[in-house]
Amino acid sequence: MDPLNIGIIGMGRIGKIHADNLLRMPRVKLAAVSDLYADEALAQWAAERGVPVATRRSEDLLEDPDIQAVFICSHTDSHVPLIVAAAKAGKHIFCEKPISLDPARTKEALDAVREAGVKLQIGFNRRFDHNFERVRELVRAGRIGEPHLVKITSRDPSPPPEDYIAKSGGIFIDMTIHDFDMARYLIGGDIEEVYARGSVLVDPAFARYGDLDTAVITLKFAGGALGVIDNSRRAVYGYDQRVEVFGSAGSATVENDHPNTAEISTAEGVTRDKPLHFFLERYNEAYVKETRQFAESLLDGADVPVDGNDGLQAELAALAAKWSVRLGRGVKLRELGDTERLTKEALDKEATLA
Amino acid sequence: MDPLNIGIIGMGRIGKIHADNLLRMPRVKLAAVSDLYADEALAQWAAERGVPVATRRSEDLLEDPDIQAVFICSHTDSHVPLIVAAAKAGKHIFCEKPISLDPARTKEALDAVREAGVKLQIGFNRRFDHNFERVRELVRAGRIGEPHLVKITSRDPSPPPEDYIAKSGGIFIDMTIHDFDMARYLIGGDIEEVYARGSVLVDPAFARYGDLDTAVITLKFAGGALGVIDNSRRAVYGYDQRVEVFGSAGSATVENDHPNTAEISTAEGVTRDKPLHFFLERYNEAYVKETRQFAESLLDGADVPVDGNDGLQAELAALAAKWSVRLGRGVKLRELGDTERLTKEALDKEATLA
Amino acid sequence: MDPLNIGIIGMGRIGKIHADNLLRMPRVKLAAVSDLYADEALAQWAAERGVPVATRRSEDLLEDPDIQAVFICSHTDSHVPLIVAAAKAGKHIFCEKPISLDPARTKEALDAVREAGVKLQIGFNRRFDHNFERVRELVRAGRIGEPHLVKITSRDPSPPPEDYIAKSGGIFIDMTIHDFDMARYLIGGDIEEVYARGSVLVDPAFARYGDLDTAVITLKFAGGALGVIDNSRRAVYGYDQRVEVFGSAGSATVENDHPNTAEISTAEGVTRDKPLHFFLERYNEAYVKETRQFAESLLDGADVPVDGNDGLQAELAALAAKWSVRLGRGVKLRELGDTERLTKEALDKEATLA
Amino acid sequence: MDPLNIGIIGMGRIGKIHADNLLRMPRVKLAAVSDLYADEALAQWAAERGVPVATRRSEDLLEDPDIQAVFICSHTDSHVPLIVAAAKAGKHIFCEKPISLDPARTKEALDAVREAGVKLQIGFNRRFDHNFERVRELVRAGRIGEPHLVKITSRDPSPPPEDYIAKSGGIFIDMTIHDFDMARYLIGGDIEEVYARGSVLVDPAFARYGDLDTAVITLKFAGGALGVIDNSRRAVYGYDQRVEVFGSAGSATVENDHPNTAEISTAEGVTRDKPLHFFLERYNEAYVKETRQFAESLLDGADVPVDGNDGLQAELAALAAKWSVRLGRGVKLRELGDTERLTKEALDKEATLA
Repeated sequence: MDPLNIGIIGMGRIGKIHADNLLRMPRVKLAAVSDLYADEALAQWAAERGVPVATRRSEDLLEDPDIQAVFICSHTDSHVPLIVAAAKAGKHIFCEKPISLDPARTKEALDAVREAGVKLQIGFNRRFDHNFERVRELVRAGRIGEPHLVKITSRDPSPPPEDYIAKSGGIFIDMTIHDFDMARYLIGGDIEEVYARGSVLVDPAFARYGDLDTAVITLKFAGGALGVIDNSRRAVYGYDQRVEVFGSAGSATVENDHPNTAEISTAEGVTRDKPLHFFLERYNEAYVKETRQFAESLLDGADVPVDGNDGLQAELAALAAKWSVRLGRGVKLRELGDTERLTKEALDKEATLA
Repeated sequence: MDPLNIGIIGMGRIGKIHADNLLRMPRVKLAAVSDLYADEALAQWAAERGVPVATRRSEDLLEDPDIQAVFICSHTDSHVPLIVAAAKAGKHIFCEKPISLDPARTKEALDAVREAGVKLQIGFNRRFDHNFERVRELVRAGRIGEPHLVKITSRDPSPPPEDYIAKSGGIFIDMTIHDFDMARYLIGGDIEEVYARGSVLVDPAFARYGDLDTAVITLKFAGGALGVIDNSRRAVYGYDQRVEVFGSAGSATVENDHPNTAEISTAEGVTRDKPLHFFLERYNEAYVKETRQFAESLLDGADVPVDGNDGLQAELAALAAKWSVRLGRGVKLRELGDTERLTKEALDKEATLA
Repeated sequence: MDPLNIGIIGMGRIGKIHADNLLRMPRVKLAAVSDLYADEALAQWAAERGVPVATRRSEDLLEDPDIQAVFICSHTDSHVPLIVAAAKAGKHIFCEKPISLDPARTKEALDAVREAGVKLQIGFNRRFDHNFERVRELVRAGRIGEPHLVKITSRDPSPPPEDYIAKSGGIFIDMTIHDFDMARYLIGGDIEEVYARGSVLVDPAFARYGDLDTAVITLKFAGGALGVIDNSRRAVYGYDQRVEVFGSAGSATVENDHPNTAEISTAEGVTRDKPLHFFLERYNEAYVKETRQFAESLLDGADVPVDGNDGLQAELAALAAKWSVRLGRGVKLRELGDTERLTKEALDKEATLA
Repeated sequence: MDPLNIGIIGMGRIGKIHADNLLRMPRVKLAAVSDLYADEALAQWAAERGVPVATRRSEDLLEDPDIQAVFICSHTDSHVPLIVAAAKAGKHIFCEKPISLDPARTKEALDAVREAGVKLQIGFNRRFDHNFERVRELVRAGRIGEPHLVKITSRDPSPPPEDYIAKSGGIFIDMTIHDFDMARYLIGGDIEEVYARGSVLVDPAFARYGDLDTAVITLKFAGGALGVIDNSRRAVYGYDQRVEVFGSAGSATVENDHPNTAEISTAEGVTRDKPLHFFLERYNEAYVKETRQFAESLLDGADVPVDGNDGLQAELAALAAKWSVRLGRGVKLRELGDTERLTKEALDKEATLA
């Protein structure tokens, strides 16, 4: 069988992770990489690994008839135009999250994908984590009965730099989006309503951009199940990624992963090492698996494991969270269609408070 | 030193627990017990333990000049009149939670206590649990820095019978009230705003009384710290009582208590016994401690560890949670003074939805 | 039913623990206590608790026809004569471990008990620990299949004072004796052979008395199952009491008990409190249970849960361990009958080494 | 820098593991592989991975001047002649454990290595396990003070087939050898004396070859520290690999690794998945690390992390264990030089028993 030729657009940190994983994969060939700022260093990177093309022009990949699929790892702003262009060029697509900061534009991208009949996988890598996969498996197998509640703790070890905060789109679209997807994945259903409450407790920089760094989000699913997510931009003990699904027949929980199981008992107490530091350590294997499953779905004609609608639903939940903070009430996802009405309510509320 | 003479009003399950604990305490004498339904069995119970008086009339205790303090363990409806009467009689008071289902009446009781200059301790027994005490100690010592988030999981092993549901006052005042108090205790601050969302997923009986059996409650504290409580009326694996306080310098968590630490590893997996079944098992020691500290605060002239305001604050949070469900928005505790305005908003909202 | 009248001989720390536990027990009356050094303080202790007799003469207890049973909590040297005297007086007996430092004298005591037809329970309190009971239950229920291996970790938090060391009889009879009994209890079979190896690593005082403070002991049971015990006189992190039984169908393990389950995660790591400090904290409930079961076996005519042969077998294992260290080889318990031959072998070996 | 050219002799399961790991390594080239039974399948394996040479003749590798180092992954019997030949050919050597079943022959191999001035690393892969490395680090850093005791649990998930048992050399040289090395590694010192006791409880096949399947081994180290290893050929719940080092200032323990941290709580109990199944799962990363450190020590001129003496010491301990079972006593490693005396003692003992 001919190998699958893949190109990567955007060779920042995450583009390089995908490249390394694709390079180790049988039946896959990394045929080209592009980056707006491609330079000598990238050329050398490619040469050392036998990647034939390293270019500044993403068009070079999209126009190459031998390339069957592209990874879109560039800046969020470029996702929609690149998805549209790739779809038109008949390429299958793996796109990093979020598709965009605006669900309307995300829908444009999904329309283009549907029309072109190509596959689109969204980079919700956490779905491929060994712990969360196991919880999903237990839920799907009915081991906890009917799900009543999903709980997600998701805290970063340290806040991003201020210039990142300025352009991130806010905590819900930048950080919680993974948790919205995880909640849908674990419980196997759609979010209907979101209530969010947050504070700036970690770094005043967040306040300067109207953002939050600490948040609690309540979810309501179709059928009445509830969800709760708590986020912080700084857990000094490392990346805190735990979930629980509680149901009529029991509960499934996962704790953090630690670099080892060593415990030292001394006159002071019993101590073990902190959890794995951040996403590169914790989700190392998950990145490999999401890439492999994408490649396999193309090679074997299977469905991609995370599709465009998954990307859209998480964005809608993030948007609802943002409105919820502004309005001080729970916001249903189906309300998001009527922006005018939401805006009016917000202005009324703000007028009353003023 | 003369012993402290104590009487107990209401000899149901919880009254008997306090009785047993008082009987083992040095410097304390259980001088009398009363119960509206006192019968031959109670008389015998008292005789076997050397308790000189077992009566149907609580007045017998309140009028006895040798009794310095009473435990009020009767039905919630009777708490306020009994507190008022006991205060007027100059007795110190230990009262089970909640003081009442109505903060206005609770305030009457607290006024009577203040005027009489007696001590009043509320039966928030969980504050005396070895695990929660340790978390509070760590928070107070600054070990987690500034608190940002308090998380409480609180789930009963099985729902109460329907006749209990009918009179309980609803999940927030009956069950979450302990968690509101725990949140205040752990974080060492007052709740400013409550948002609650719930479902009926466990037993349709709850719906018949306009009640919920599964709930997620978001709290906002003075200073911006957040809290989240999740409740269920049925965790099939037993009583689920876990907390976490997360802050600028770390996080303190406690897991459930189990009857033993045995783990059995077989070809099927690694298994240990379920958590302790319910509050009698889990809070056994906590009941002893709260009683002892009440007695000691009377004998030694110290402050009681949980006072009337603690009781009131938890009731206010429960009331705010109830309004929040009705209004679909976060409700500040200070809004509770203007019931008229809340009612109007609720009616408007219900009219819109109709 | 008339209560059971019990007397206690020897009112040191352990005597007082039993006294406190008996005093809280229904159907039981603590009728008298004796201590060679009984003084005003003991008289007051007895008065405060309503114990009618506090005397220096154990005979006062043994001659009192109303006393049905005695606890022997005096010095080890006095155990055998007191057991013999109590048995002759027709009293049932609870005796602290070891019965004696010499199996031949222990057998005399057991003979007297058998002739008198009284009951004798030995104070192997650890059998009543919630963790070890659960492991025994799992083993007995066949959950781990046929037992192949029992492992016991048993370490004290700190060594005893030198004057205690001088008279203790050595680590095997003083400390490991509990572990020999635990091994027999968990596996449900008799020890056939013992190999012991030790060092003085904690405190040179042990060397001055020909004793050891760190030891590893291998056991062989009838049927081929193996056992291993490790002892230390000083675990700086507290009392270390863990066991495992491994078999053809799995393994059952218990960890130490901790005062709470709190974990604190900081930039330095994840820490919890040390295990419970020593036997008073760890075996608090076990002391209550062994006393209650003794009383119940007298009141209800059941067998005592730990009998004289259990005491003897643990002493024989301790003696075999002592010979093993001297001879440098595994020693079978049935070899202990021929002391002459063992002595000759030891002298030969020592001559060769000299 | 030119890459390091490496050849592999013996392309069974372990040879292929090393091959895969070397193929992913920068600065390293897998230049040739040999196997006595090389066939079309191996040729294809090599072709797919760009390995230029696949041969039946190990000489082809040893005579190739471009190859700087060889991995010896062939049958144990061939290790010594191959080490000697490779050393003479000036190749650095990575050899699987054990070097041989006979310490005298092992010494020959080490002599050849010394004379040739090449490097020799032994395949004690467990030293590179994340858990054991962390314990060693804690011990080396003095966190537990002076080591008093090392405890190793090492149990396979299921016994090998009978034809393997027939040629394995027995449990001590085949299985415990890893644990002897681990004990030396963790405690940082040499074993002086070994006492071993075992049974056949898992599979009667072991008895047919004079072998054991369940064993407890006591170690004594220079300075008086003790060690204890327990082995079983069948732990039905999976590969059981735990260690503890206990010392004057505390204790460091590691538990098994599990495939995930998921816990499911139901009405039956709390369950998690079994430990990782066997060495391929558990020591996956350790194999990568030992290979990388070998390559790096050649490229950077550093010492190899596990040398020939480490291989010899573990074999001596295994031999001492074997003699200990036969003699029924502790055997010092320095006694192994006088085989005649040990044989005489064994025959005397066996005569006495007969």
